[in-house]
Amino acid sequence: MSQSSSPRKKTGRRPGGADTRREVLEAARGEFAARGYQKASMRAIARAAGVDPALLHHYFGSKDRLFLAALEFPVDPRVMVEQVLAGDREGMGERLAAFVLRLWEEPAVRERLLALLRTAATTEEVAALMRGFMVTELVGRVAAGLDVERPELRVELVMSQIVGLAMARYVIGVEPLASTPAEELVPLLGRTVQLYLTAP
Amino acid sequence: MSQSSSPRKKTGRRPGGADTRREVLEAARGEFAARGYQKASMRAIARAAGVDPALLHHYFGSKDRLFLAALEFPVDPRVMVEQVLAGDREGMGERLAAFVLRLWEEPAVRERLLALLRTAATTEEVAALMRGFMVTELVGRVAAGLDVERPELRVELVMSQIVGLAMARYVIGVEPLASTPAEELVPLLGRTVQLYLTAP
Repeated sequence: MSQSSSPRKKTGRRPGGADTRREVLEAARGEFAARGYQKASMRAIARAAGVDPALLHHYFGSKDRLFLAALEFPVDPRVMVEQVLAGDREGMGERLAAFVLRLWEEPAVRERLLALLRTAATTEEVAALMRGFMVTELVGRVAAGLDVERPELRVELVMSQIVGLAMARYVIGVEPLASTPAEELVPLLGRTVQLYLTAP
Repeated sequence: MSQSSSPRKKTGRRPGGADTRREVLEAARGEFAARGYQKASMRAIARAAGVDPALLHHYFGSKDRLFLAALEFPVDPRVMVEQVLAGDREGMGERLAAFVLRLWEEPAVRERLLALLRTAATTEEVAALMRGFMVTELVGRVAAGLDVERPELRVELVMSQIVGLAMARYVIGVEPLASTPAEELVPLLGRTVQLYLTAP
Protein backbone atom coordinates (compact mmCIF):
# COMPACT_ATOMS: atom_id res chain seq x y z
CA MET A 1 0.00 0.00 0.00
CA SER A 2 2.45 2.60 1.20
CA GLN A 3 5.14 0.49 -0.39
CA SER A 4 5.00 2.29 -3.70
CA SER A 5 7.94 4.44 -2.69
CA SER A 6 9.78 1.41 -1.34
CA PRO A 7 13.47 1.34 -2.14
CA ARG A 8 13.43 -2.43 -2.20
CA LYS A 9 13.16 -2.96 -5.90
CA LYS A 10 15.43 -0.13 -6.82
CA THR A 11 18.59 -1.69 -5.53
CA GLY A 12 20.22 -4.91 -4.49
CA ARG A 13 22.74 -3.17 -2.24
CA ARG A 14 22.54 -3.76 1.50
CA PRO A 15 22.01 -0.08 2.45
CA GLY A 16 18.82 0.08 0.43
CA GLY A 17 17.56 -3.39 1.36
CA ALA A 18 14.38 -4.29 3.21
CA ASP A 19 16.24 -4.49 6.53
CA THR A 20 17.65 -1.01 6.17
CA ARG A 21 14.26 0.34 5.21
CA ARG A 22 12.72 -1.24 8.27
CA GLU A 23 15.46 0.14 10.52
CA VAL A 24 15.07 3.61 9.04
CA LEU A 25 11.30 3.59 9.52
CA GLU A 26 11.72 2.38 13.08
CA ALA A 27 14.27 5.09 13.79
CA ALA A 28 11.90 7.62 12.20
CA ARG A 29 8.99 6.52 14.38
CA GLY A 30 11.23 6.82 17.43
CA GLU A 31 12.47 10.28 16.52
CA PHE A 32 9.00 11.56 15.54
CA ALA A 33 7.54 10.18 18.76
CA ALA A 34 10.31 11.67 20.89
CA ARG A 35 10.53 15.12 19.34
CA GLY A 36 7.30 15.66 17.44
CA TYR A 37 6.93 16.24 13.73
CA GLN A 38 8.30 19.76 13.52
CA LYS A 39 11.41 19.19 15.65
CA ALA A 40 12.34 15.74 14.35
CA SER A 41 15.32 15.92 12.00
CA MET A 42 16.39 13.76 9.09
CA ARG A 43 19.94 13.91 10.43
CA ALA A 44 18.95 12.45 13.82
CA ILE A 45 16.89 9.71 12.15
CA ALA A 46 19.83 8.78 9.91
CA ARG A 47 22.11 8.67 12.95
CA ALA A 48 19.69 6.45 14.89
CA ALA A 49 19.34 4.09 11.94
CA GLY A 50 23.11 4.08 11.32
CA VAL A 51 22.81 5.24 7.72
CA ASP A 52 24.14 8.21 5.81
CA PRO A 53 21.78 11.23 5.77
CA ALA A 54 22.27 11.41 2.01
CA LEU A 55 20.86 7.91 1.67
CA LEU A 56 17.81 8.94 3.66
CA HIS A 57 17.21 11.90 1.39
CA HIS A 58 17.80 9.73 -1.62
CA TYR A 59 15.15 7.20 -0.66
CA PHE A 60 12.57 9.33 1.10
CA GLY A 61 13.15 12.73 -0.43
CA SER A 62 11.95 14.79 2.50
CA LYS A 63 10.80 14.65 6.09
CA ASP A 64 7.12 14.60 5.20
CA ARG A 65 7.54 11.62 2.89
CA LEU A 66 9.49 9.76 5.53
CA PHE A 67 6.75 10.58 8.04
CA LEU A 68 4.02 9.23 5.75
CA ALA A 69 6.03 6.03 5.22
CA ALA A 70 6.78 5.62 8.94
CA LEU A 71 3.10 5.97 9.89
CA GLU A 72 2.07 3.83 6.91
CA PHE A 73 -0.16 6.53 5.49
CA PRO A 74 -1.94 4.87 2.57
CA VAL A 75 -2.03 8.11 0.59
CA ASP A 76 0.03 11.24 0.14
CA PRO A 77 -2.21 14.11 1.29
CA ARG A 78 -0.22 16.55 -0.82
CA VAL A 79 -1.45 14.89 -3.98
CA MET A 80 -4.98 15.67 -2.81
CA VAL A 81 -4.08 19.27 -2.06
CA GLU A 82 -2.64 19.75 -5.54
CA GLN A 83 -5.62 18.22 -7.28
CA VAL A 84 -8.07 20.28 -5.28
CA LEU A 85 -6.30 23.62 -5.65
CA ALA A 86 -5.63 23.14 -9.37
CA GLY A 87 -8.90 24.04 -11.08
CA ASP A 88 -11.76 26.49 -10.86
CA ARG A 89 -12.63 27.85 -7.43
CA GLU A 90 -16.35 27.05 -7.74
CA GLY A 91 -15.60 23.36 -8.13
CA MET A 92 -13.14 23.12 -5.23
CA GLY A 93 -15.58 21.73 -2.66
CA GLU A 94 -16.97 19.05 -4.92
CA ARG A 95 -13.49 18.05 -6.15
CA LEU A 96 -12.26 17.62 -2.60
CA ALA A 97 -15.39 15.69 -1.59
CA ALA A 98 -15.10 13.36 -4.57
CA PHE A 99 -11.39 12.77 -3.97
CA VAL A 100 -11.79 12.04 -0.27
CA LEU A 101 -14.80 9.77 -0.65
CA ARG A 102 -13.14 7.80 -3.48
CA LEU A 103 -10.17 7.22 -1.18
CA TRP A 104 -12.21 6.14 1.82
CA GLU A 105 -14.24 3.75 -0.31
CA GLU A 106 -11.13 1.65 -1.06
CA PRO A 107 -11.15 -1.01 1.66
CA ALA A 108 -7.36 -1.19 2.12
CA VAL A 109 -7.00 2.59 2.34
CA ARG A 110 -9.97 2.88 4.65
CA GLU A 111 -8.65 0.20 6.97
CA ARG A 112 -5.34 1.97 7.39
CA LEU A 113 -6.88 5.45 7.76
CA LEU A 114 -9.26 4.15 10.40
CA ALA A 115 -6.40 2.50 12.28
CA LEU A 116 -4.60 5.86 12.31
CA LEU A 117 -7.74 7.66 13.43
CA ARG A 118 -8.33 5.18 16.25
CA THR A 119 -4.75 5.46 17.40
CA ALA A 120 -4.88 9.24 17.33
CA ALA A 121 -8.12 9.13 19.32
CA THR A 122 -6.59 7.05 22.08
CA THR A 123 -2.87 7.92 22.10
CA GLU A 124 -1.88 11.52 22.74
CA GLU A 125 1.60 11.05 21.21
CA VAL A 126 0.08 9.98 17.92
CA ALA A 127 -2.48 12.79 18.06
CA ALA A 128 0.39 15.24 18.59
CA LEU A 129 2.27 13.79 15.62
CA MET A 130 -0.72 14.01 13.31
CA ARG A 131 -1.35 17.56 14.51
CA GLY A 132 2.23 18.61 13.80
CA PHE A 133 2.22 17.04 10.37
CA MET A 134 -1.18 18.40 9.36
CA VAL A 135 -0.49 21.95 10.46
CA THR A 136 2.96 22.05 8.88
CA GLU A 137 2.37 20.22 5.63
CA LEU A 138 -1.31 20.47 4.87
CA VAL A 139 -3.17 23.34 6.47
CA GLY A 140 -0.66 25.97 5.44
CA ARG A 141 -0.53 24.80 1.85
CA VAL A 142 -4.26 24.81 1.30
CA ALA A 143 -4.78 28.02 3.29
CA ALA A 144 -2.28 29.82 1.07
CA GLY A 145 -4.54 29.14 -1.91
CA LEU A 146 -7.67 30.57 -0.28
CA ASP A 147 -9.16 34.04 -0.40
CA VAL A 148 -11.00 34.22 2.95
CA GLU A 149 -10.33 35.51 6.44
CA ARG A 150 -8.69 33.04 8.84
CA PRO A 151 -7.96 30.54 6.04
CA GLU A 152 -6.22 28.03 8.37
CA LEU A 153 -9.34 27.80 10.51
CA ARG A 154 -11.45 27.18 7.40
CA VAL A 155 -9.17 24.37 6.24
CA GLU A 156 -9.31 22.75 9.65
CA LEU A 157 -13.09 22.91 9.68
CA VAL A 158 -13.04 21.03 6.38
CA MET A 159 -10.69 18.45 7.92
CA SER A 160 -13.00 18.13 10.90
CA GLN A 161 -15.96 17.40 8.61
CA ILE A 162 -13.97 14.75 6.76
CA VAL A 163 -12.82 13.07 9.97
CA GLY A 164 -16.35 13.19 11.38
CA LEU A 165 -17.89 11.76 8.23
CA ALA A 166 -15.42 8.89 8.40
CA MET A 167 -16.29 8.27 12.04
CA ALA A 168 -20.05 8.39 11.47
CA ARG A 169 -20.06 6.40 8.22
CA TYR A 170 -17.35 3.80 8.76
CA VAL A 171 -16.78 3.55 12.52
CA ILE A 172 -20.15 4.18 14.17
CA GLY A 173 -21.87 3.08 10.97
CA VAL A 174 -25.05 5.03 11.51
CA GLU A 175 -27.81 4.41 8.95
CA PRO A 176 -28.75 5.61 6.34
CA LEU A 177 -25.38 7.42 6.16
CA ALA A 178 -23.33 4.22 6.20
CA SER A 179 -25.00 2.63 3.20
CA THR A 180 -25.68 5.71 1.08
CA PRO A 181 -23.59 5.43 -2.11
CA ALA A 182 -20.56 7.72 -2.11
CA GLU A 183 -21.78 9.47 -5.30
CA GLU A 184 -24.84 10.69 -3.44
CA LEU A 185 -22.71 12.07 -0.62
CA VAL A 186 -20.33 13.99 -2.90
CA PRO A 187 -22.66 16.94 -3.62
CA LEU A 188 -23.74 17.25 0.04
CA LEU A 189 -20.20 17.08 1.40
CA GLY A 190 -18.91 19.19 -1.48
CA ARG A 191 -21.33 22.01 -0.71
CA THR A 192 -20.16 22.13 2.90
CA VAL A 193 -16.49 22.11 1.91
CA GLN A 194 -17.17 24.88 -0.60
CA LEU A 195 -18.87 26.93 2.11
CA TYR A 196 -15.93 26.57 4.48
CA LEU A 197 -13.29 27.29 1.85
CA THR A 198 -14.86 30.14 -0.05
CA ALA A 199 -17.81 31.82 1.72
CA PRO A 200 -16.90 35.20 3.26
CA MET B 1 -23.24 14.92 36.39
CA SER B 2 -25.61 12.34 35.09
CA GLN B 3 -26.85 12.01 38.63
CA SER B 4 -29.62 14.57 38.20
CA SER B 5 -32.16 11.81 37.66
CA SER B 6 -30.69 9.73 40.48
CA PRO B 7 -33.24 8.03 42.67
CA ARG B 8 -30.95 8.33 45.67
CA LYS B 9 -32.44 11.40 47.21
CA LYS B 10 -35.97 10.45 46.47
CA THR B 11 -36.20 7.54 48.87
CA GLY B 12 -34.58 5.92 51.84
CA ARG B 13 -35.98 2.48 50.98
CA ARG B 14 -33.53 -0.24 50.06
CA PRO B 15 -34.95 -0.81 46.51
CA GLY B 16 -34.17 2.76 45.54
CA GLY B 17 -30.80 2.95 47.29
CA ALA B 18 -27.40 3.47 45.75
CA ASP B 19 -26.71 -0.27 45.63
CA THR B 20 -29.88 -0.99 43.72
CA ARG B 21 -29.17 1.84 41.33
CA ARG B 22 -25.70 0.44 40.69
CA GLU B 23 -27.06 -3.05 40.15
CA VAL B 24 -29.72 -1.79 37.76
CA LEU B 25 -27.19 0.18 35.73
CA GLU B 26 -24.90 -2.83 35.59
CA ALA B 27 -27.74 -5.06 34.46
CA ALA B 28 -28.69 -2.44 31.88
CA ARG B 29 -25.14 -2.30 30.49
CA GLY B 30 -25.14 -6.09 30.26
CA GLU B 31 -28.48 -6.26 28.49
CA PHE B 32 -27.67 -3.37 26.10
CA ALA B 33 -24.31 -4.95 25.27
CA ALA B 34 -25.83 -8.38 24.73
CA ARG B 35 -28.89 -7.40 22.69
CA GLY B 36 -28.22 -3.92 21.33
CA TYR B 37 -30.23 -0.81 22.03
CA GLN B 38 -33.34 -1.62 20.03
CA LYS B 39 -33.78 -5.20 21.27
CA ALA B 40 -32.87 -4.64 24.91
CA SER B 41 -35.97 -4.69 27.12
CA MET B 42 -36.74 -3.00 30.42
CA ARG B 43 -38.28 -6.25 31.57
CA ALA B 44 -35.07 -8.24 31.00
CA ILE B 45 -33.00 -5.57 32.73
CA ALA B 46 -35.34 -5.62 35.74
CA ARG B 47 -35.10 -9.39 35.87
CA ALA B 48 -31.29 -9.35 35.70
CA ALA B 49 -31.12 -6.75 38.46
CA GLY B 50 -33.69 -8.59 40.57
CA VAL B 51 -36.06 -5.64 40.83
CA ASP B 52 -39.64 -5.06 39.85
CA PRO B 53 -40.12 -3.67 36.30
CA ALA B 54 -42.43 -1.04 37.76
CA LEU B 55 -39.58 0.22 39.93
CA LEU B 56 -37.36 0.52 36.88
CA HIS B 57 -39.99 2.56 35.08
CA HIS B 58 -40.54 4.64 38.16
CA TYR B 59 -36.90 5.62 38.51
CA PHE B 60 -35.73 5.78 34.91
CA GLY B 61 -38.96 6.49 33.07
CA SER B 62 -38.01 4.89 29.79
CA LYS B 63 -35.42 2.80 28.00
CA ASP B 64 -33.63 5.79 26.53
CA ARG B 65 -33.22 7.43 29.94
CA LEU B 66 -31.89 4.21 31.40
CA PHE B 67 -29.49 3.92 28.48
CA LEU B 68 -28.16 7.45 29.01
CA ALA B 69 -27.66 6.73 32.72
CA ALA B 70 -25.99 3.35 32.08
CA LEU B 71 -23.51 4.87 29.60
CA GLU B 72 -23.05 7.91 31.86
CA PHE B 73 -24.06 10.33 29.14
CA PRO B 74 -23.41 13.76 30.62
CA VAL B 75 -26.34 15.29 28.78
CA ASP B 76 -29.76 14.28 27.53
CA PRO B 77 -29.60 14.68 23.74
CA ARG B 78 -33.38 15.04 23.60
CA VAL B 79 -33.18 18.31 25.45
CA MET B 80 -30.95 19.57 22.66
CA VAL B 81 -33.36 18.34 20.01
CA GLU B 82 -36.25 20.15 21.64
CA GLN B 83 -34.37 23.40 22.00
CA VAL B 84 -33.17 23.31 18.42
CA LEU B 85 -36.49 22.41 16.82
CA ALA B 86 -38.45 24.92 18.90
CA GLY B 87 -37.90 28.26 17.21
CA ASP B 88 -37.58 29.81 13.78
CA ARG B 89 -36.20 27.63 11.02
CA GLU B 90 -33.61 30.21 9.90
CA GLY B 91 -31.96 30.14 13.31
CA MET B 92 -31.85 26.35 13.65
CA GLY B 93 -28.24 25.89 12.57
CA GLU B 94 -26.86 28.59 14.83
CA ARG B 95 -28.95 27.42 17.80
CA LEU B 96 -27.64 23.88 17.45
CA ALA B 97 -24.06 25.09 17.00
CA ALA B 98 -24.27 27.31 20.08
CA PHE B 99 -25.85 24.55 22.17
CA VAL B 100 -23.31 21.91 21.17
CA LEU B 101 -20.27 24.13 21.60
CA ARG B 102 -21.44 25.37 25.00
CA LEU B 103 -21.74 21.73 26.10
CA TRP B 104 -18.34 20.67 24.81
CA GLU B 105 -16.69 23.66 26.46
CA GLU B 106 -17.64 22.36 29.92
CA PRO B 107 -14.62 20.32 30.99
CA ALA B 108 -16.57 17.61 32.84
CA VAL B 109 -19.03 17.12 29.99
CA ARG B 110 -16.27 17.16 27.42
CA GLU B 111 -14.25 14.57 29.32
CA ARG B 112 -17.16 12.14 29.43
CA LEU B 113 -18.19 12.72 25.80
CA LEU B 114 -14.61 12.17 24.65
CA ALA B 115 -14.39 8.96 26.68
CA LEU B 116 -17.56 7.74 24.94
CA LEU B 117 -16.21 8.76 21.54
CA ARG B 118 -12.91 6.98 22.13
CA THR B 119 -14.66 3.85 23.28
CA ALA B 120 -16.99 3.89 20.27
CA ALA B 121 -13.96 4.35 18.00
CA THR B 122 -12.22 1.29 19.38
CA THR B 123 -14.99 -1.06 20.54
CA GLU B 124 -17.51 -2.27 17.99
CA GLU B 125 -20.07 -3.22 20.67
CA VAL B 126 -20.14 0.34 21.97
CA ALA B 127 -20.26 1.75 18.43
CA ALA B 128 -23.25 -0.51 17.75
CA LEU B 129 -24.95 0.68 20.92
CA MET B 130 -24.44 4.36 20.10
CA ARG B 131 -25.67 3.70 16.58
CA GLY B 132 -28.82 2.01 17.81
CA PHE B 133 -29.57 4.75 20.28
CA MET B 134 -28.87 7.61 17.90
CA VAL B 135 -30.93 6.21 15.05
CA THR B 136 -33.86 5.29 17.28
CA GLU B 137 -34.01 8.26 19.61
CA LEU B 138 -32.31 11.16 17.87
CA VAL B 139 -32.17 10.99 14.10
CA GLY B 140 -35.83 10.17 13.67
CA ARG B 141 -36.98 12.93 16.00
CA VAL B 142 -35.00 15.68 14.32
CA ALA B 143 -35.68 14.35 10.82
CA ALA B 144 -39.43 14.51 11.48
CA GLY B 145 -39.12 18.26 12.00
CA LEU B 146 -37.32 18.91 8.70
CA ASP B 147 -38.63 19.82 5.29
CA VAL B 148 -35.97 18.35 2.98
CA GLU B 149 -35.42 15.16 1.01
CA ARG B 150 -33.69 12.32 2.90
CA PRO B 151 -33.96 14.12 6.23
CA GLU B 152 -32.30 11.28 8.21
CA LEU B 153 -29.20 11.55 6.05
CA ARG B 154 -29.09 15.31 6.65
CA VAL B 155 -29.31 14.87 10.41
CA GLU B 156 -26.51 12.31 10.33
CA LEU B 157 -24.31 14.65 8.31
CA VAL B 158 -24.82 17.24 11.04
CA MET B 159 -23.87 14.66 13.66
CA SER B 160 -20.79 13.76 11.64
CA GLN B 161 -19.69 17.41 11.60
CA ILE B 162 -20.18 17.69 15.34
CA VAL B 163 -18.22 14.51 16.04
CA GLY B 164 -15.47 15.59 13.67
CA LEU B 165 -15.22 19.05 15.19
CA ALA B 166 -14.84 17.45 18.62
CA MET B 167 -12.11 15.16 17.30
CA ALA B 168 -10.20 17.94 15.55
CA ARG B 169 -10.58 20.54 18.31
CA TYR B 170 -10.32 18.48 21.49
CA VAL B 171 -8.64 15.19 20.57
CA ILE B 172 -6.17 15.98 17.79
CA GLY B 173 -6.05 19.60 18.98
CA VAL B 174 -5.07 21.10 15.66
CA GLU B 175 -4.29 24.85 15.74
CA PRO B 176 -5.78 27.43 15.28
CA LEU B 177 -9.02 25.43 15.62
CA ALA B 178 -8.25 24.19 19.14
CA SER B 179 -7.76 27.64 20.65
CA THR B 180 -10.32 29.63 18.69
CA PRO B 181 -12.99 30.83 21.14
CA ALA B 182 -16.25 28.89 20.84
CA GLU B 183 -18.19 32.11 20.07
CA GLU B 184 -16.17 32.53 16.89
CA LEU B 185 -16.91 28.98 15.83
CA VAL B 186 -20.67 29.22 16.36
CA PRO B 187 -21.46 31.16 13.15
CA LEU B 188 -19.16 28.97 11.03
CA LEU B 189 -20.53 25.72 12.40
CA GLY B 190 -24.05 27.12 12.46
CA ARG B 191 -23.96 27.94 8.77
CA THR B 192 -22.95 24.38 7.92
CA VAL B 193 -25.63 22.88 10.13
CA GLN B 194 -28.20 25.19 8.55
CA LEU B 195 -27.10 24.08 5.09
CA TYR B 196 -27.48 20.40 5.96
CA LEU B 197 -30.83 20.80 7.68
CA THR B 198 -32.61 23.20 5.36
CA ALA B 199 -30.97 23.60 1.92
CA PRO B 200 -32.85 21.73 -0.83
